[in-house]
Amino acid sequence: MSQKLRLIPVGGLGEIGKNMLYLEYGNNALIVDAGLMFPENDMLGIDYIIPDFRSLLDRKHLVRGVVITHGHEDHIGAMKHVMAEFDAPVYATPLTRGLIEVKLREAKLYDRVSLNTVHAGDRVNIGPFAVEFFHVCHSIPDCVGLGITTPAGLIVHSGDFKFDHTPVDGWPTDYAKLAEFSGRGVLALLSDSTNADKPGWTPSEAVIGPAFDAVFREAPGRIIIGTFASLISRIQQVANAAFKHGRKMTLAGTSMQENARIAQKLGYLEVPDGLIIPVDEALKLPPRKVVVMTTGTQGEPSSILGRLSEGRNRQFDLQVGDTVIFSSHPIPGNEEMVHRTINKLLQRGAHVIYDPIAPVHVSGHASAEEMKLLIHLVKPKFFVPVHGELRHLHQHAALAREVGIPPENIAVVENGQVIEFHNGTMTLGERVPGGYVFVDGSGVGDIGPSVMREREALAESGVVIVNLRVNRDGQLVGKPEILSKGFVFVRDEAEMFEAAQAQVAKVATHANGDLRQRVEAALSDFFYSETKRRPMIFALVNQVQ
Amino acid sequence: MSQKLRLIPVGGLGEIGKNMLYLEYGNNALIVDAGLMFPENDMLGIDYIIPDFRSLLDRKHLVRGVVITHGHEDHIGAMKHVMAEFDAPVYATPLTRGLIEVKLREAKLYDRVSLNTVHAGDRVNIGPFAVEFFHVCHSIPDCVGLGITTPAGLIVHSGDFKFDHTPVDGWPTDYAKLAEFSGRGVLALLSDSTNADKPGWTPSEAVIGPAFDAVFREAPGRIIIGTFASLISRIQQVANAAFKHGRKMTLAGTSMQENARIAQKLGYLEVPDGLIIPVDEALKLPPRKVVVMTTGTQGEPSSILGRLSEGRNRQFDLQVGDTVIFSSHPIPGNEEMVHRTINKLLQRGAHVIYDPIAPVHVSGHASAEEMKLLIHLVKPKFFVPVHGELRHLHQHAALAREVGIPPENIAVVENGQVIEFHNGTMTLGERVPGGYVFVDGSGVGDIGPSVMREREALAESGVVIVNLRVNRDGQLVGKPEILSKGFVFVRDEAEMFEAAQAQVAKVATHANGDLRQRVEAALSDFFYSETKRRPMIFALVNQVQ
Repeated sequence: MSQKLRLIPVGGLGEIGKNMLYLEYGNNALIVDAGLMFPENDMLGIDYIIPDFRSLLDRKHLVRGVVITHGHEDHIGAMKHVMAEFDAPVYATPLTRGLIEVKLREAKLYDRVSLNTVHAGDRVNIGPFAVEFFHVCHSIPDCVGLGITTPAGLIVHSGDFKFDHTPVDGWPTDYAKLAEFSGRGVLALLSDSTNADKPGWTPSEAVIGPAFDAVFREAPGRIIIGTFASLISRIQQVANAAFKHGRKMTLAGTSMQENARIAQKLGYLEVPDGLIIPVDEALKLPPRKVVVMTTGTQGEPSSILGRLSEGRNRQFDLQVGDTVIFSSHPIPGNEEMVHRTINKLLQRGAHVIYDPIAPVHVSGHASAEEMKLLIHLVKPKFFVPVHGELRHLHQHAALAREVGIPPENIAVVENGQVIEFHNGTMTLGERVPGGYVFVDGSGVGDIGPSVMREREALAESGVVIVNLRVNRDGQLVGKPEILSKGFVFVRDEAEMFEAAQAQVAKVATHANGDLRQRVEAALSDFFYSETKRRPMIFALVNQVQ
Repeated sequence: MSQKLRLIPVGGLGEIGKNMLYLEYGNNALIVDAGLMFPENDMLGIDYIIPDFRSLLDRKHLVRGVVITHGHEDHIGAMKHVMAEFDAPVYATPLTRGLIEVKLREAKLYDRVSLNTVHAGDRVNIGPFAVEFFHVCHSIPDCVGLGITTPAGLIVHSGDFKFDHTPVDGWPTDYAKLAEFSGRGVLALLSDSTNADKPGWTPSEAVIGPAFDAVFREAPGRIIIGTFASLISRIQQVANAAFKHGRKMTLAGTSMQENARIAQKLGYLEVPDGLIIPVDEALKLPPRKVVVMTTGTQGEPSSILGRLSEGRNRQFDLQVGDTVIFSSHPIPGNEEMVHRTINKLLQRGAHVIYDPIAPVHVSGHASAEEMKLLIHLVKPKFFVPVHGELRHLHQHAALAREVGIPPENIAVVENGQVIEFHNGTMTLGERVPGGYVFVDGSGVGDIGPSVMREREALAESGVVIVNLRVNRDGQLVGKPEILSKGFVFVRDEAEMFEAAQAQVAKVATHANGDLRQRVEAALSDFFYSETKRRPMIFALVNQVQ
């Protein structure tokens, strides 16, 4: 009897099947990617978020391999959490492996994990799965999609991808392999939905070259270019422009320096000798001879761009005449912080360039027409949109219907939904827990909705603490002590706090009911009537006589 | 000796000259607009934000009039705060006046304020200023720009505007008046910069008609359309589509009902008799015969769309087969909430349509080519970009330079910067305080940076309260009581709190220094080592023996 192939988008925040995917056939399983997400604005105090893979833990002995598509945080950022639980070899291309190594070393897991280098074009047998890695263009080098031949049929997974005809590294997405898959017959295509609501075709990275050229020709002083630390091709493009226009280049910030070092060592970044110089040397050159590359384009206050925008960077300051380029787009949710940073840089006299003012960034994800092309190239029987919010998946499904995939052969699912393939059919199986887990400090999963609601309440109107001293008979001794934080500016409100003390004294004389509760309720009403705010109130009762 | 004309963008959050402008010549002054802004995501607990007009208070006897360009919150939302301070007549067009009346009645200021109705085309003398009101297109009817003839020259203020050749109300922006101004000679143009980084021309409201038609033709069940309560022309478009496709229309939510009522009464909304029916009647009709209009397109959890997305709306629930249209764009900063709401509506089985999936909304603000057209029509000597963040003003200035305004005749300034016009020159004067003021509950301006930092700290890791009972000798009596909120899930952490109690007991035995401080420092370190979090800690010391 043939067995079912089970596919589960495991979990993550908002996006489906992005951070982690699970494939199981009989007693063998594969994990694809192990990434993290950053918290949304109302997830107070949370550091980052990982997929909730707890439902897989009782099947961990089935996992034969962990296959990684590329080295972005949302695909490798949870490696230390995943590899602490699953004892299986990891497969990744050289650059991706280099980035994973850094993470595993930091987590002191490096010696415990078997890392295997693969290259686009390789075919690796992992249990009953034959995994073919094929090159795709994206915003970090050395990305792969996966062709996974299973006993149930061939599954093609796009990874994060775009079809760029003129990528910076000259290496387009592997059309031939995709066509070859379709010749063999593809059971199901899993495809990146990120830009499903963007019509047309994502511009090539090549459009950035002329935009940089224009800036490098005109800029009267230093050029400071911000981008993602992992965007190696952008570092390459800046190096090309710097060389052409006679500027030296320097990399500020350890994450970018580290990534560039790994990429150069592995041959993904080619820079003429002497072009990249240390920051302190660059600062001694005439401003017209320098380009600084750095991070911080998401408005992070602690980044170099963030510090420059507030005049509190240590090594160097912004100068009038500086041109700052934001070679990135705001990640959804970061818009306010990014725009605030741009405004502050302008305030300090910099010239600031960002998309859409000039085409200094392009997306790394396919737009609608590319998505349709992929479907036509692969000709899958079944289609499963992944990598995107539910709204992107629905839109991607609409595109798939447009190009002829029958509606009943498309599965728009959420994280935790098991999809089963059996004898050439696709059905939805059970739903396993497939949410996300907050990481806050060293705590993984200990912050749930109740703690989050408490943080919201504290953030909304602050906290008031009342220390009540009572005698044996429950009568108040002295004046109650009232402290507050985040409620009002205490120094200006002495009168209100005195009235609050009187209010507490009044309530305390009526001896019915619990004193603590009575005081908390009375103070809540009193402060609301005075301020229309409801701080969180704690009354402590201490018998002192 | 001729006097100076002083112009001040008074204040507001992020955008410049948007919420309030001040013009002064000799002993006479005008205020233009009195609006509010909504807080950014990191302004915890703040209800709304008003311009900091305190620097004008010692000149309030100079103010001869308050002129309002249109009825959006960011132009009238601070009326109750402004009119409580300034004793001057208000000038507004009929719809704007109607919306202001509601606000003044709520604030019990209606009887104290002199309201004057003006119409586009009117010329009103206010002190030494002759104010000509001219019609502009925007996303609420009855918007005006201002031509203000002062002894120093003619100032033209665009208000919020776009050039729509086919607006829903058939009333285009008044090109002739703009050309007439240029014939008279314009000293300075103040122009809306909101979309300065959008190339081209903002689409006409007319593009929405065919998009609605397509949805109304196809939708198998109810249609639920969300938009801004003030977007009267969108209500008109929905009414037109409903009538054409044989559906009845209902308005859900009091703000939209109230606005539609005022607009209908004043003739800005024309609906066939019997088309609009009460919600409870609409719910009895077959789904194919109903369109519901409502608010909540910014993802507000308490709005009807917000409640529908979570299955907790009282009057009606979402049904499979419902089509929900977001006829709006997310206001910057609201993207996450809007997208979350869309995802949740999809989860509940609704079909959801939003821009860019279909052109169901257009901006109410001019794009780059329209901005250039306005400059060419008005031919000002000086140019002052307003209504936008600093980055928009800089980009608008770049557009002005492109169309021939000399760089030295362009003033990109921030709120509080005085601009002086004198004998045909423009110079920058002093800088007065021109920031913004937080409104939180009934408190105006009592929340400053220190309280905000406390709220941030509370939101980040919560609060811990330790109640210490000591004897006469300062020795601990019994176990200290430890409470926490927003820190960890207390029920799972009994062990840690017991260890914390032991830690407190240990610290308390060493009698050197202040007990409270020692306990707070020790607990902070203990909890950090346990959790890598730093909650705000309060230790209270009570002598009980």
